[in-house]
Amino acid sequence: MNGVTGRMGRNQHLARSIAAIRSEGGLEVGDVVIWPDPILVGRNIEQLERLGNEYGIERYSTDLDACLSDPDYELYFDAQVTSRRQEALASAIKAGKDVYCEKPISMSTGGGLELARMAETAGIHNGAVQDKLFLPGLVKLREVLAAGMLGKLLSVRLEFGYWVFGDGLGPTQRPSWNYRVEDGGGIVLDMFCHFRYVLDHLFGGVRSILCVTQIQVPERVDEHGQTYEVTADDTALALVELEGSIVAQISASWCVRPYRDDLLVIHVDGTSASATAGLRYCKVQPATTTPTFIWNPDVPQDIDPRHGWLEVPDRQRPTNAFRRQWELFLRHVVLGEPFPWNLRDSVRGVQLAELALQSASERRWIEVPELPR
Amino acid sequence: MNGVTGRMGRNQHLARSIAAIRSEGGLEVGDVVIWPDPILVGRNIEQLERLGNEYGIERYSTDLDACLSDPDYELYFDAQVTSRRQEALASAIKAGKDVYCEKPISMSTGGGLELARMAETAGIHNGAVQDKLFLPGLVKLREVLAAGMLGKLLSVRLEFGYWVFGDGLGPTQRPSWNYRVEDGGGIVLDMFCHFRYVLDHLFGGVRSILCVTQIQVPERVDEHGQTYEVTADDTALALVELEGSIVAQISASWCVRPYRDDLLVIHVDGTSASATAGLRYCKVQPATTTPTFIWNPDVPQDIDPRHGWLEVPDRQRPTNAFRRQWELFLRHVVLGEPFPWNLRDSVRGVQLAELALQSASERRWIEVPELPR
Amino acid sequence: MNGVTGRMGRNQHLARSIAAIRSEGGLEVGDVVIWPDPILVGRNIEQLERLGNEYGIERYSTDLDACLSDPDYELYFDAQVTSRRQEALASAIKAGKDVYCEKPISMSTGGGLELARMAETAGIHNGAVQDKLFLPGLVKLREVLAAGMLGKLLSVRLEFGYWVFGDGLGPTQRPSWNYRVEDGGGIVLDMFCHFRYVLDHLFGGVRSILCVTQIQVPERVDEHGQTYEVTADDTALALVELEGSIVAQISASWCVRPYRDDLLVIHVDGTSASATAGLRYCKVQPATTTPTFIWNPDVPQDIDPRHGWLEVPDRQRPTNAFRRQWELFLRHVVLGEPFPWNLRDSVRGVQLAELALQSASERRWIEVPELPR
Amino acid sequence: MNGVTGRMGRNQHLARSIAAIRSEGGLEVGDVVIWPDPILVGRNIEQLERLGNEYGIERYSTDLDACLSDPDYELYFDAQVTSRRQEALASAIKAGKDVYCEKPISMSTGGGLELARMAETAGIHNGAVQDKLFLPGLVKLREVLAAGMLGKLLSVRLEFGYWVFGDGLGPTQRPSWNYRVEDGGGIVLDMFCHFRYVLDHLFGGVRSILCVTQIQVPERVDEHGQTYEVTADDTALALVELEGSIVAQISASWCVRPYRDDLLVIHVDGTSASATAGLRYCKVQPATTTPTFIWNPDVPQDIDPRHGWLEVPDRQRPTNAFRRQWELFLRHVVLGEPFPWNLRDSVRGVQLAELALQSASERRWIEVPELPR
Repeated sequence: MNGVTGRMGRNQHLARSIAAIRSEGGLEVGDVVIWPDPILVGRNIEQLERLGNEYGIERYSTDLDACLSDPDYELYFDAQVTSRRQEALASAIKAGKDVYCEKPISMSTGGGLELARMAETAGIHNGAVQDKLFLPGLVKLREVLAAGMLGKLLSVRLEFGYWVFGDGLGPTQRPSWNYRVEDGGGIVLDMFCHFRYVLDHLFGGVRSILCVTQIQVPERVDEHGQTYEVTADDTALALVELEGSIVAQISASWCVRPYRDDLLVIHVDGTSASATAGLRYCKVQPATTTPTFIWNPDVPQDIDPRHGWLEVPDRQRPTNAFRRQWELFLRHVVLGEPFPWNLRDSVRGVQLAELALQSASERRWIEVPELPR
Repeated sequence: MNGVTGRMGRNQHLARSIAAIRSEGGLEVGDVVIWPDPILVGRNIEQLERLGNEYGIERYSTDLDACLSDPDYELYFDAQVTSRRQEALASAIKAGKDVYCEKPISMSTGGGLELARMAETAGIHNGAVQDKLFLPGLVKLREVLAAGMLGKLLSVRLEFGYWVFGDGLGPTQRPSWNYRVEDGGGIVLDMFCHFRYVLDHLFGGVRSILCVTQIQVPERVDEHGQTYEVTADDTALALVELEGSIVAQISASWCVRPYRDDLLVIHVDGTSASATAGLRYCKVQPATTTPTFIWNPDVPQDIDPRHGWLEVPDRQRPTNAFRRQWELFLRHVVLGEPFPWNLRDSVRGVQLAELALQSASERRWIEVPELPR
Repeated sequence: MNGVTGRMGRNQHLARSIAAIRSEGGLEVGDVVIWPDPILVGRNIEQLERLGNEYGIERYSTDLDACLSDPDYELYFDAQVTSRRQEALASAIKAGKDVYCEKPISMSTGGGLELARMAETAGIHNGAVQDKLFLPGLVKLREVLAAGMLGKLLSVRLEFGYWVFGDGLGPTQRPSWNYRVEDGGGIVLDMFCHFRYVLDHLFGGVRSILCVTQIQVPERVDEHGQTYEVTADDTALALVELEGSIVAQISASWCVRPYRDDLLVIHVDGTSASATAGLRYCKVQPATTTPTFIWNPDVPQDIDPRHGWLEVPDRQRPTNAFRRQWELFLRHVVLGEPFPWNLRDSVRGVQLAELALQSASERRWIEVPELPR
Repeated sequence: MNGVTGRMGRNQHLARSIAAIRSEGGLEVGDVVIWPDPILVGRNIEQLERLGNEYGIERYSTDLDACLSDPDYELYFDAQVTSRRQEALASAIKAGKDVYCEKPISMSTGGGLELARMAETAGIHNGAVQDKLFLPGLVKLREVLAAGMLGKLLSVRLEFGYWVFGDGLGPTQRPSWNYRVEDGGGIVLDMFCHFRYVLDHLFGGVRSILCVTQIQVPERVDEHGQTYEVTADDTALALVELEGSIVAQISASWCVRPYRDDLLVIHVDGTSASATAGLRYCKVQPATTTPTFIWNPDVPQDIDPRHGWLEVPDRQRPTNAFRRQWELFLRHVVLGEPFPWNLRDSVRGVQLAELALQSASERRWIEVPELPR
């Protein structure tokens, strides 16, 4: 496990995933118990020792190469800063390790595709984090879709956003580099890779995109109280065509005051029912109980459209989304169960973000081709 | 008043507007009392007599030409079926009358523009119905905008729609011709003329449009229980650029199960506040009370985004939207007050619908030019 | 229309059905307007005249034979007391009339079957009242079933009953003959003909029955305050096998204090959803939102099983059940639309009641054979 | 106490019953204090030691025979797995101990009857768990019945069930062996032994049964995500005749979506009042406040049948059902108070389940004979 001294690596991957699985005696699947036994890798030996003590991991090292050449370790995990990831993953794949990692796997579609091909040629198990897909609300939405309750899908709407302060009214909730294109900022790069896997895995493969980006708040105040010029998109509106002629309408902005149930809301209409989901909930309305609205602006509407929706219950103790995906990856490696969220799939997210920016700049629809083998 | 034997003409224009104003002693503006004293014109003398008796109007006639040449009448109003409107308006303008009428004023942008030019050349007062603009919710939204409360406008979202039954589950709420392109159906033609005046008058002039149309439910059951093929768009998604670099996102569909506060919802974000309005209500959230959301999908969001919105109160008894516009037109004619909702303005609605369909068919952004003088 | 001086005939068939249709200008079906123009037949000419005046019917007669031989009248309707019905229907069929009537069409399965065969041989349109099927709650349940929302049907439960006073505590709500077998009383004869058409038309044809009958309150006080011995069943419990291996559990009693939503409740479980309906409402619970109950009597259940049910909305103005069926019969006669609720179907109800009593007396399962041609 | 390392033995019998009584200073009855002073018996000495430490029990042993021959111990309690129970109970009875145990006391009616006879011949005190009878709702129902409030009993309805997931929609709530007849599964074996003692002790001795069983969901997904064939009944519908001509209608299913107040509901009607009880509540409606319903489907029912029911209050702090029965058994042993829930009584439950399955298979009423002496 490389990069667990960082915030995401430590909290989500070490503490809430691997250490949590170990503290419960490993991952039981039927008669099999999968027991992850990691070595922590990093650059600061004191930090690694402290982490090891805290989470009951005995082995740690600052020598990645030595670890990669040790046949005892089968799986390489990477949660380093993005700029170091591609090279480390390439080394691990060359060393014949299975790999699992944070996203993005590379700074570019091309670089990511290269990694995916290496992994495919090497025949190793590989995967990358797609955590939103494993949030309780989206898990429940996926169950509703899998149950066929919605009938034929008709349309999807995806609304993301909230007000990010940068005007001195309050401390800002996000680092200033998010608003500078030269630092890799922008809402498209930040969110469209997530939107890609949500769309692909829940509703149907993405086929084309039309996007508009904006800088709605051109000046912000940074972490140090200094005013700076915003150069990266803080708002993106898009239309995305999916296979099966479904069109998804996307709205993502750091300059909106949401009047909805959650910061991310997905609404899906189908012939037999509709569903609306946030990060932690999912509600449905079947066709048979859909109210008969009459459009007559001259009289007050006597039906509240929010009535007549039922919440899908939590059928199991909600699990941390990262741990849930870790468990699926471990089952994939040990038991050979399918795991579609691999490196190639992760590249598709970067691809959609790049094509969205191209569409916005060229003001036209852009086809989203299947990634070459 | 021509065409008051029809449903809209009688209910909205005669009963709830002109007769209502008369029953309250006319329209008082300062010291002036404006007293509308109409003659009812139509083709069935018995019906006209009955209407006259019911609403206390003494004069009625089946001879439009005679009325138009009678100098006692200054204003011609038309609520006939659309196909007869253009010719009648042209005659009235030629006769030197002021004109006010239902929409659309013509079947095409070209025909409407011709009428607008005639009226401008003749120098008469002229206007056409834009009723949605005078609904209580939109009136309150306009007041909020006029007060400058939102600061610089950033974005607009307009969501319209509800489920129109056509699957035998229940009687359908709309006539089947709405779903046949050969009969003038389609949601773009039905709604985009309304969207045009809402956008132009509330937020800023429309500059360009990108639209996608769909037929999501390809077969429906009609009024007589017969299945028919749908040939007109039942769903339209659009992005519209307004002056001032504001982008409006539009969603209109008869195939959605709304999970919102109303069948039509308009959301506007600005630097100082946001507003969300339906047909009868308007709510606002100022920047100073905007919650500081932290995007962290791993913990439940503890703030309900719907909290912290305040409803704009009804400061006056809600007036029927048609009557409200009638009063403004009467003041325009008698007192010379401004009335921007004239024939030329009405043509812009037809123009936007036509260009939206062109954009959908050509899959590209279309500029929306100013109508030629 | 014969027998409209009685309560049912006048209120349900004349006033709320035929006169109501006439007062609305007839029954419009597409371009066709069906105009029922009846002659009232009975034994008391003054009563008939009064009824005619009240409901705008000009013709009435005390001579049934003359009416039946008048070729102007195409349809014979009968709502006389049950004992006179069979003979009158037979005469009408012989006279070549279409027939429609109250139930039961005969005092016995044999007599009813004879009528059905006569009607089939004569090739006339024929039907009998099955009013419960057209109550708003059951109409909505039928729509839910027709929409396929429940998936594969698993089970049906039908609970009917309420406390009928006969103990001097309050006036009784039912005539005393209902409790004397020698007067044709008993809850099986009263209700099982209704249950038959509800089961057959909603869930699947009845195949066999096991019934238990009881006299739970053996002495009652009659209309005149006299105590009498109860000789007819006041309670019946049954299991009914339907085609498709569905078992319906039936409970009918005049000696229960219901703790349910309505006096008649139908509960249906299916693989994809369940429904529960009363006379005027229908509620559903989809599989996706079904709570995960854990059976643990040692801790309080924290989910209320009544939560998570959605009411099916009234999509159209509720119509009187009798009128609704009248309209379908008129469409059947005039337009040839299907009408499965014919005389033969009506006999099936009597058949089920007879076999239920046989099952109770012989304490065994009884097959319910298809009626012979 | 043998078998307290298992879940039921430890939680219900040791922790919540015996240890709880001890922690409150023993069971006070008038001047007498009954002080249970157990030795824990099992196969794993470390586990026993840990349990002993936790619950303040000093003595434990892995040698059952030694304990049984120790005259210090008067009472043998057994909560081992069912397959070991009969033999251990037989040894204890032979050793002259009083016995108390979990149910079922044997795998068959014959084996159980043999134990009952041994105990009766030996003249020892004996009892078996019938926990449902001591749940707060049923205790209150028993108090209502004992008070004679219902008058003469007329009918009983017992509805049990909820939806057990096995379709991949969510994790199943029950182990898969419950659905395999070869593993001792099936809802009849699981629940009818409970129904027997509820019927016998609350309403009157069972005399005969007619039962229908079904497999409504023929394929389920097990604990490991594997699909398996269901071979045991998941639904049972029955009619049961009790002494006094009362008929109980029973519905038990793991394939229903309950629309009731609880997962198990018992409804009893009597001449003077009715009662409806769940696991924790009991409500009553006296004859004097029973509404006068009029059966008229053509007008909305204006009385809600759920109104006019009164909840029986909790007059004492609810006690755990197992502890409540333990206390009664200790009083029986020490003070000679009656204790009808003995081994013979426990056999009756197994008997009813066996005869219910026979009735379903032979499609006929089966008499339920008194167990031979």
